[in-house]
Formats: sequence, structure tokens, C-alpha cells
Amino acid sequence: MTEPSDRKFKQIGSRPIRHDGLDKVTGRARFGADFALPGMLYGVFARSPHAHARILSIDTSKAERLEGVRAAVTAADLPDLPDEWMGVTEGGTCPSEDSQNVLAREKVLYHGHAVAAIAATTFEIAREACGLIDVEYEVLEPVLDLGRALAPDAPILHENQAPFGDEPLPQGPTNIARQVAFEGGDLEAGFARADVVVEGTFETPMVHQGYIEPHACVVDVREDGTSEIWCATQGPFGVKRATAMIVGCDANGIKVTPSEIGGGFGGKLSVYLEPVAHVLSRKSGRPVKMQMTREEVFRATGPTSGARIDMRVGAKRDGTLVAAETRMAYEAGAFRGSAVGAAAMTVLTPYRIPNFKILGLDVVLNKPKAAAYRAPGAPIAAFATESLMDELARRLDRDPIDLRLQNAIEEGDHAKYGPAFKRIGLRETLEAARAHPHYRAPLAANQGRGVACGFWMNGGYQSSATVSVDEDGSAVVRTGSPDIGGSRVALALMVAEELGISVARVRPFVGDTDSVGYCDPTGGSRVTYATGMAVIEASRQVIEHLRARAATIWGVGLDAVEWQDGCAVATKGAAEKGSLPLGEIAEQMRMTGGPIVVSASLSPPAAGPAFGTHLCDVEVDPETGCTKVLRYTVVQDAGKAVHPTYVEGQFQGGAAQGIGWALNEEYLWDEKGRVENAGFLDYRMPVASDLPMIDTVIVEVPNPLHPYGVRGVGETPIVPPLGTVANAMRAATGVRFYSLPMSPPRVLEALESRQG
Amino acid sequence: MTEPSDRKFKQIGSRPIRHDGLDKVTGRARFGADFALPGMLYGVFARSPHAHARILSIDTSKAERLEGVRAAVTAADLPDLPDEWMGVTEGGTCPSEDSQNVLAREKVLYHGHAVAAIAATTFEIAREACGLIDVEYEVLEPVLDLGRALAPDAPILHENQAPFGDEPLPQGPTNIARQVAFEGGDLEAGFARADVVVEGTFETPMVHQGYIEPHACVVDVREDGTSEIWCATQGPFGVKRATAMIVGCDANGIKVTPSEIGGGFGGKLSVYLEPVAHVLSRKSGRPVKMQMTREEVFRATGPTSGARIDMRVGAKRDGTLVAAETRMAYEAGAFRGSAVGAAAMTVLTPYRIPNFKILGLDVVLNKPKAAAYRAPGAPIAAFATESLMDELARRLDRDPIDLRLQNAIEEGDHAKYGPAFKRIGLRETLEAARAHPHYRAPLAANQGRGVACGFWMNGGYQSSATVSVDEDGSAVVRTGSPDIGGSRVALALMVAEELGISVARVRPFVGDTDSVGYCDPTGGSRVTYATGMAVIEASRQVIEHLRARAATIWGVGLDAVEWQDGCAVATKGAAEKGSLPLGEIAEQMRMTGGPIVVSASLSPPAAGPAFGTHLCDVEVDPETGCTKVLRYTVVQDAGKAVHPTYVEGQFQGGAAQGIGWALNEEYLWDEKGRVENAGFLDYRMPVASDLPMIDTVIVEVPNPLHPYGVRGVGETPIVPPLGTVANAMRAATGVRFYSLPMSPPRVLEALESRQG
Repeated sequence: MTEPSDRKFKQIGSRPIRHDGLDKVTGRARFGADFALPGMLYGVFARSPHAHARILSIDTSKAERLEGVRAAVTAADLPDLPDEWMGVTEGGTCPSEDSQNVLAREKVLYHGHAVAAIAATTFEIAREACGLIDVEYEVLEPVLDLGRALAPDAPILHENQAPFGDEPLPQGPTNIARQVAFEGGDLEAGFARADVVVEGTFETPMVHQGYIEPHACVVDVREDGTSEIWCATQGPFGVKRATAMIVGCDANGIKVTPSEIGGGFGGKLSVYLEPVAHVLSRKSGRPVKMQMTREEVFRATGPTSGARIDMRVGAKRDGTLVAAETRMAYEAGAFRGSAVGAAAMTVLTPYRIPNFKILGLDVVLNKPKAAAYRAPGAPIAAFATESLMDELARRLDRDPIDLRLQNAIEEGDHAKYGPAFKRIGLRETLEAARAHPHYRAPLAANQGRGVACGFWMNGGYQSSATVSVDEDGSAVVRTGSPDIGGSRVALALMVAEELGISVARVRPFVGDTDSVGYCDPTGGSRVTYATGMAVIEASRQVIEHLRARAATIWGVGLDAVEWQDGCAVATKGAAEKGSLPLGEIAEQMRMTGGPIVVSASLSPPAAGPAFGTHLCDVEVDPETGCTKVLRYTVVQDAGKAVHPTYVEGQFQGGAAQGIGWALNEEYLWDEKGRVENAGFLDYRMPVASDLPMIDTVIVEVPNPLHPYGVRGVGETPIVPPLGTVANAMRAATGVRFYSLPMSPPRVLEALESRQG
Repeated sequence: MTEPSDRKFKQIGSRPIRHDGLDKVTGRARFGADFALPGMLYGVFARSPHAHARILSIDTSKAERLEGVRAAVTAADLPDLPDEWMGVTEGGTCPSEDSQNVLAREKVLYHGHAVAAIAATTFEIAREACGLIDVEYEVLEPVLDLGRALAPDAPILHENQAPFGDEPLPQGPTNIARQVAFEGGDLEAGFARADVVVEGTFETPMVHQGYIEPHACVVDVREDGTSEIWCATQGPFGVKRATAMIVGCDANGIKVTPSEIGGGFGGKLSVYLEPVAHVLSRKSGRPVKMQMTREEVFRATGPTSGARIDMRVGAKRDGTLVAAETRMAYEAGAFRGSAVGAAAMTVLTPYRIPNFKILGLDVVLNKPKAAAYRAPGAPIAAFATESLMDELARRLDRDPIDLRLQNAIEEGDHAKYGPAFKRIGLRETLEAARAHPHYRAPLAANQGRGVACGFWMNGGYQSSATVSVDEDGSAVVRTGSPDIGGSRVALALMVAEELGISVARVRPFVGDTDSVGYCDPTGGSRVTYATGMAVIEASRQVIEHLRARAATIWGVGLDAVEWQDGCAVATKGAAEKGSLPLGEIAEQMRMTGGPIVVSASLSPPAAGPAFGTHLCDVEVDPETGCTKVLRYTVVQDAGKAVHPTYVEGQFQGGAAQGIGWALNEEYLWDEKGRVENAGFLDYRMPVASDLPMIDTVIVEVPNPLHPYGVRGVGETPIVPPLGTVANAMRAATGVRFYSLPMSPPRVLEALESRQG
């Protein structure tokens, strides 16, 4: 295999129009709610009006008597599942809790928690019937923030659950569900060597992924219990497994067809509707459609954790970091499983710190169960680290990029969670940011510039791909990786690059769980990397077949046939045969052995970590506290950008989400634990007019684990913005912000306290 | 590889319920007309009221002005295509004629020939609009039978077309489109040695396949010209190729999804609707649905040829055949391409005849273009051969089975068209028939028994299959072979047999043209044979992966792992490791290299010929001429019956169709060439009450070309019935019937002429 960095690409790095583009701009593409079956019923959830309550009884009989109602479901229709943590991809799961999150069993644990569901001939009837369900509750005190959750006298959400994870574990009763710890060197000795120590307590609220498309599915259960599911998901094989587990049927009998997906960002890895629609379909004998309202998405699907991070960092006068300590408490929501594990892995990793201690706490409280959100946990952790790095640069009067370069990890350095890095590009992104005109552009009054870095491990996991050649010389590539950010065209580019044909002649296909080989979900920035490797491997095996066919056609030995630029080329004394383009070999497949179809699969043990450095200029209006992002530049190591437009799109999208998180987004809760802003009018995400065009710089430090050097690119860009914007705010206002969002009222308050 | 005959099967030969059975009995399965898209239009054809006419002009303007009409199409919307015969699978094709059969260009060539089509918001509006299309015709004399077609002064359908094929070719002008000839030995010398010569002229009418489901499709063309087609077809890849050719677009941009299929029998290999719906969709910018009425199916889709066969056969007094000669004229319908080629290959092949001459003529006339129908051409040819064999047995006073046994071909004998046979089972079916109680059962007055043989070459062609193993130890098998006769369960049985898991844990999947590797159509009795070989090959490669995974898990060499009964078994000094069932290896796939997915493809150069011998008892009512089939037994060599129930089903179905053809089925034409019985009320196919339970005997003489010994079974059973029934009628009535159908009026007429 050619070393990634030496390879001269012909198509990788070009910017063809994506194959699914036309359908998406014309409205032809079918999303989760676009599917329908004849005779279909409509399912609606009845949800808890309390954030914390014991369920004494549920009576659906009145609802079931309503004309048009065909089935009702409660947790009593679901099997008991093991109450234990099971480690699988994407961090782990607890079957019993996954089931309880779908339908509450003994307790409701957040406002909007589903307690029952109704299938009826229309959504309106189903909604009316939900109002006829009688639920008796014993209302309990809701636990709404980390302070209360960790207080000695706090109400305990899960009375019988002991925490697990790294020792020493707290003794119960506790709302700490899990503990993660990493340690290195000698912390006290390290701090003893420090000339400067910076510290702070950082707080961020729960925020939502804010995907445009609400969750939706249709489930059709046959008389024999086998079923088909159509839904919007990042992982159709995961929907199959989770639905089978929760309803207690054989996963083997479920076929899941993923629709196009209107955004996921990790939030469409979880299963909310499918098991309930499955039971409703089984009970009614009819297909059942369920789709959430926007309000339900906000109240009852996984946001990312709110968090509180205490951190201190020590450095020598020359800027060398010597010690760091952090304690990170992450809100898991109603059930354990926040992203504190990944937060602990990423929080201090970008910098060489010989002595460190990281403690992460997974804390349950009466809010919706947290789900994955783009680089789960890392943006919050980086907010703390990068704010303190900025503070340190100020204290040492150092350029913030120079200080980071001085401490940046490189190839051979160890991550704080253990393994040594292979070739990585943190240094290169810092250097590119320093060299960027943005970094030297003048600023005016009330304006400030921030810089921050970010890191994400990226995922490998399992992927399969099948590549075939058609008689007309075109090719098809089939995978089970739903296309969220342009992966169809990226995978097609790989086939085109290998075979030497036009990318327009490669048809990328995303299949249902029966039609394609197993793929883990689209997430962890793994598809272009891992599914891509399976595609490249399959394409290379296709070339071996094509060489063999050419040898047959020419009547020469296989070793006399090379493959160059889409042609078989005869060598070794057979050179007079000349060359045969792929298209001509394809025309003769019928007579030389039949179709060429190759499948390849893999489970790479590691991926290529990606680092980024962001620059942001803000202007803060001292009259209103309103912040305007003037300029924003994302510099990130993509390893190799397969389709630069979609790499840039990921950079821009991640930055936009991070800026929203930094400046405006937050769930607002009333004292009873009800979300007060469960809609896009009140939950303020950035829209186009809020942001400048986000500039991007793609750095390419090849990932040695991938034949083209590809790294994942989707998650890293959301990691730096919280810190970048906060550091720019510090520069613009003189105020260090320890709490997000830095929304106008909070900024005004901070400015006033500064003047006061 | 174990020799087929030695292999002890664990699952092959069992009778599990087919995976698609439930959906088919509950009505859940989706057939061609069951698909719909939002905003869909409905397309209807305007058809010729003349059997033969020149088109002077077509004016669709009035139709296009009708409210609700969105597009009109005529042949002017289709590109000119080459007017040449191109040899491909399934016998060949002429692009220009395929296009003209879809939409008439300069001439209409049969009553019901499509001249234009309309897409409108409802079928009713489209139908009304078709009535507003003005077509000016110059009516020509229709050519309605072979006699007229071959007369020196016959009107010529295709004035500029010269016949092709085996020399010496007739000189034009002629309606002979093609000529096929096989010759061996010295015909005159052979007949000179004959002690007995039997001869006759046999005539059979055009008959229809009679599938229950009329043709239907939905076509959706995108703005960029790419498209999706949903339709009932035996060959989705063929629909893709033919549609692209006829509309003049890139096949690469068409995706075809085959629905379930409500019968095809060869009649769903042709394309009638898809190219027209494609143009209507392109012009209207909307999806277009087209579906035929039963009447359209009869008037304008391919029946099988009517034919006239002159034959003489010479034998020595001891029964040894010495010479045979036949001239077979087959009705091609409006365009060349009857099954006379296959007829010539099969007609004399079952018997050793040292001196022979076979001439086949493909004759065009003003009837719908013939299409494939189950063992195309062979039943008619066998009707002649087997009637004369019966006559010969009578003349020589020999048992008809003994006479056939005496002359039956065996391994090493050459087919009349050239190649030598490998192991075949004609003799074994004759012996099994002779030993069957049916053959010795007593008969009463007006009853008679017939026996006849039949032969079909069977097809190989191209197939692909992908087999994968899921983490739960189940498997999926994916192919592009639409399931007509139970091939899903047959293919799943092969996976189950190889992997050693339950067939219920194998999910067979038939995919669209993007989701699976290339497969030639379901036809030629090729799927269980050729697609099956690809499935077995892929399954065996899956086992190699499973062995390697077990070796990894155990930490031993690959050569120390064998595969036995669904388990990896450690050997060679590693025996203490014991064994690992597939399910346990599957659970660990994630950690041992990822998913296991294997694709295999092939294009076998030959298949396994299948022979059958049928027995039939009839009773003829001398008052009414009505014939009752009292008992019918099919004996056929299946090679190896993978799923005996569906093998028996094929035997029974072929016999039922052949009995209908023999006794009742025929197109009735008026003097202008209009079909008078274009509906199931007037076109008399046998229904359940017309037939006895058809008995079956599966003979298994392994096909040495297939790892399990499988032969195709679907086509051979329709070959003997015409001769079998005619021979039984001869026995019951004393009359030799040379013309089909032997319907009550004809039988009465024959009985009266006998008495007269």
C-alpha cells in the first residue's frame, strides 16, 4: 500500500455534486414522516405532567372505548429487562432503563416522560384518547440541578441502584450513577512546581441537538411477529437490536429501512418510538405511524448534559504546563449514561501535562435522559480547559497560540486515557491559525478575539460494503451507513478513485438491514473513515477481478496484467496486448466468469484523532449585552479531505452549533421541572442572519491508519467554539465568563458587575 | 467437493414453510399494481383497432387539451434504434422492433398494438383522452395464419427485412424472419433403412401464459433524467436495460425495484409499460403508474406461438429409430423472435436418431409478438414427436414406454444441436413411470391412457449472491432473482445446509437493481441452479471466515480448525479447545475482524438438462365431446429436489398448463384479426374443478455440474402434457388428434368423422 502522504489522488479531494443532492433540493427525498402504508394507524404518547412521581396506577379503559382507538400500550406490555450496565458500542446501555425511558414503569422521572400510548385511526383521535387515560401519581420532589442532586439529603431517583465505575465509589444513597477517573504523575508534586495556577468553576446548561426533523417511524408487525420498521435513524441495525430487546422479540425477525435523515447529531442513535409503535402494531394488527411534535422532541428526547466543571491548571513561568486537576459533574438526565466518560478522555488530552487527575461523575436528575450530541461531552470540557489556557496566557503575557504550541501533544505522546498517539495534527492547526490573516486583522472598540483548540478521538467500529461493476462499466457501492453529511458521494469518490472511473458513474446506495452487510451507526465521525476503508478494500478486490478478466481475455498470466488509471495494462512480454479500459472488460463479464461483486467488512481497532483550532472575533454591545460574531475561522486537521465541500460543511456546521451553545442556547426550567421553551421560537438556535460566513482551513496531516490518510471530521468542529467565543468575550469585555450561555441578559449583568 | 450423489443432506430435501408465505396468504405481499407515489399520474394506452395498417398521422392535441391530461407520448418521442438482431440472453432481441412493439411507428401490426399513451390525473381521464387521439390509418390486409403468411402473394409485414439464420435462406419478399437448422447422419439413407415410417402434420394455436397478475408499473423520472421503476418482472436488470435502450437514456441512471410477481411463466421477461411510463413521467415531471386490464394482457402481451409441424419418423421393425425429419413453422407474431430455435433444439433430442434433419422457421404475421412461455417452443415440438412415438408403438405393437426406453438418450449421447450430455435421467423417469401403479391401473369404456416424454435444456446465465452472518447467529442471503416458485426458501435452505443453522434463521432477500449484484432474469429454470451455486459458493466462503474467526478466538492455526454441522471444531493437537457453534463465533465478530459478508458471482457455461415422463388417463364423453382428466402423474428428474414441495408444485403447475393447452386453450380470431375471447371467461384455462390432484414422482439423478446435483425443474413439466393427453385421447377414442385444442366441438367432430 502506498503511504497515504505520497499518494497522488485523481478524484479524492474534488468536489462533485452529491448523488442525493437533487432529491434533497427538489423535495423528492423521503424523510422519516414521509412513509405511509395502507390501513395505517396513528400512535400518540400520553406523557407525565410531573418531573418526578411514583406511578400508582394507569387505567386506559376509557381511552380504549373511544371510537377509532385500536390499541393502548403501557410498560405492562413490555418485558422486564436486566437492570445492569452493558458495555457496547457508543458507550454502553442498560436494557431495563432503555425500556423505562421509552415507557415509564414505576416512576416518571422527567416532565414529558411517556407513560402510555394509543393507536387510533387518526392522530386527533389518538390525542383525544390520551387525554382519557387515568394515571394516579404520587408526586415527589423533583431534582433539577447538580447541586441539589449531589446534596446529602437529595431525593434519590433510583433508590436501589449503586454507582459503578472507577474507585473509590461514593457510598449510597446517591444520584451519582457512575464514576470515571484518569490519573498520571504526582498531582501535588506537580502543583508544587507550578509558578502560576489558574482555576475556575465552569457551568453549562442542557442544550438540544436541534435537528430539524422530529423523530418519526412506521412499524408493521406481521401475524407471526416478524416486522418491518421505516424510520429516521443514524443506525438502522441499532434500531433493530434495541426494538427487539425492548419488546422482547427476535431481532432476526425485524427489518429496518432507514429514511433520509433531517439531522441527527447523535440524537438519532436513541430509540423512542419504534418499540411502542411495534407493540401498538402487534396489538392492533395494523401498521402504526408515530411522529413527534417539536415540543415532544424538546421535552422527551435526549439533549446533551448540563455540567459543572471544577478545574485548576498549573504552569511554570516559561509556560510549561506541570499539573492539572478537574472534577466534572455531568447531568445524565433521568437515567445514567451522560457523556462524562468521553469528556474525561478529551478534557486535558491536547496538552502535555505530566501530573494530572481527572474525575468524572455521571449524575442522574429529573430531566430527559441525555443522548449523544456531536463529540459528546467534549465541548463542555474544552470550554473549561481552553478558558483556563486563555487565562494562563494572559497571566504569563503570552500569545495564546504560542502557549498552546509550547504544550501541544504530538506523535508519540500519550492521551490522558492511555494510548500513545500516532501522527496527529494539533501543532499544524495551531500554526495554520497563527499564519491566517484573521489572526492579525485589526479590532475596534468592544471587539475581541478568541482562540481555542479542540480534540475528538473519532470512532472505528464495524462496517461492511459491497462494490459491483455493471456491464456498462458503471459501479454500485452499497453500505448500511445512513448519509448524514455527504457520505454517499465520499464513498463513491473512493470507488471512482480506485477503479479509475467517473464518480458520476458510481451509484452509492444506503440499504435496509436485510439488503446490506452490518454497519454500526453513522456517528463517532466513523463513516468516511471505517465504511470508507471497507469500500476501498472491496474496490481493490474488484480490481483484482478485473485484472483476472483481462488476463482471461488476453490469454495471458495474471502477473502480466497491471491496473493503471481505469485500465488493465499488459506487461512482462505481453505488452503487445496494450490496454483494456474497465468498460471493455465489463462488457465481457458475462463470458469471462459472470458479474463482479465484492463485499468487504472490518472492525478497525482505532481511528484517526482529529484536532482543530478556532478563531473568533466578537463585538459586544455594552448597551444591550448583545454579542455579534464578526468573524469566525475553523482550522482543522481532516487527515485527507475526501470531498472538501462537505468537510467544510462539517466545520461550519459544528462551529455554528457551538456558537449557539456559547451565546444563546439553554433549556429554561420552571420550579417544577417543566421546560418553558420547548420550541424553536423560544429555544434560540442561531439562524443564518446571526452568523457571518464561517471561514475554513483544511489541514491535511495523513492518518496512518487509513489508506488515504482520512480522519473523521464531523465532531471535532463543535469542540472549540465554546472556549473560542468565551475567550473572545473576555477580550472584548474584560470579563471571564464561567457560565453559558453568554446571552444578552447575562452579559449585561456581567458588564454591570464589572463597572460596579 | 463431495460428489453430489454421495452427499448426505441435513436440510436440503426438507419442506419448511417459505419465508414469503405468510405475506402471500394474508394479502400483505405487494404486487406490481400495489405501489403508489404522492402526486402520481395514471397512464393509459391508445391501441390500434386494426390488425395491419399503415399509420398516416397521429394527432394528440385534442387529447392533450382535456382537463387533467398532463402528457402524451407517441413513437415520435422515442429514439430510432438499430434494426438488427442482437444475440443476448434468452434468445436475442432487435432494439428497433422492441421499441416498435412498445409504440407502433410506421405500421400497426396487430389489433391492440399501442400507438400512443396519455398520462392524466386519473385512469378515467386518461382513458377518455385516448378516445380523443386522432390516428389516420391506411388499412392493409391482415396476415392471420401460417398458410397465408407463407403464401407467395402474402402481404409482407416488414418490407425491408431479409431473413437470417441457417442457410439456405429463402429469398424475399417473405414473412420468414429467421431459419434454424440442425442435421445429422444421412437422412435419405436412414429412411431407406426404416421398416416403418410414421408421419403427420401437427397444428397448435397461439395460447397465453395466463398469469393472474396483469402487467403494472410506477415510473418516476427525476429532473436530471435518472429514474426509479417499480414493477412486476422476472428480470429487473432486464427492465433497466430495455427501458434505457428504448427511451434512449443511460441505464446507469435507472433503479428497478421488482415487486412480488403474480405469475410470469416467461411473459414477464418482456417490457411493455415501463419505457412509455418513463417518457410520460419525464414529460409531466410526475410519477406515472400504468397497469394493464386483462383485455390488454390478452390483446397486446406476448402469448406463445401457434405452430405447424410436419414430421416423419422411421424405425426398424425391432423399434430402433433410424431417421426423422421435421419442418416447424412457428408464429412469431408481429415481430421476429418466436421460440422456434428452442423447439428445434428439443424436438428430437430425447431419442437416439442417427439420421435427422430439423428445419425451423420463424414466421411473422399480424398477431401480438410472441413471448417466452415455460420451456418456450418445446411443448409444441414434443406434441409432434410424442404423438408419432405413440403411433409407432401402436404400429409395432410395442409398449410405449419400452419403445422409448429402447431409444432413450443417455450420458455421452449428443443432443441434436451438438453437445454430448453428461449424466441425465430420461431412462430413470421412464422406468419410474413404468413401475408406477398408475401405469397398470384398469381403465373402463371411453377411457384411455397416454404416455409421453419431455426435455428442456435449462439455463445457466449470470447470478450473484451475498451471504452474511448477523451477531445473533442468523444469516441473510441477498440475490436479484425475483421469487416466482419458492426460490427464496430454496436459496435459504442452501445457506442453512452449508452453515448448519436452521432455515428459519436465514432471511432470503430479493433486492432492487442497486441493492444486489447482477442477476439475469428468473427464467430458463435457472435460479435454484445458478443463483443457488452463487449462494453455495458465498456460504462456503462464509465458513472460511468463520473458521478463521474460531482460529483467532482459540489462538490456533487455521489448519487446526474444521467446520462440522454448524460448529468450528479444533483438531491437530488443538483438540482440547473443543468446538464453537456458529452463534458463539458470531457474537464475537465485532472483536475478531468485524462483520462477515461475502459476495459471489458466476456465469456457468451450462446447466443440467431435465427430462420427464408423464402418464394421463382421460375419459371422453361421446355425447358431448367433453374430456375429463381422470388421473395424471408427472415423473421428472429434478437432479436433487432442494424443497420437494415446490418441486412438486412446479410439476403440477406445468402439467396443469399443458393440459389446458391440450384440451381447451386457444385465441379465437375474427376475420379482421381481432381476438374474440380476450378474458378469462371466454379464454378457457383449467380451474381446480377441471383437474384431478396431479400425482408427482421426483426422480433424483444428480446433475454433475451442481454441487448438490440440482437441475432446473420449472419448465420440463409443461413439455410432455400435450403429447400425453393426445395419446390418451387416441387410446380413449381411437382417433389421432393432430390439432389442438382437443376441445369438445373438435372432439365431437372427430368422433363423428370416425363413425362416418
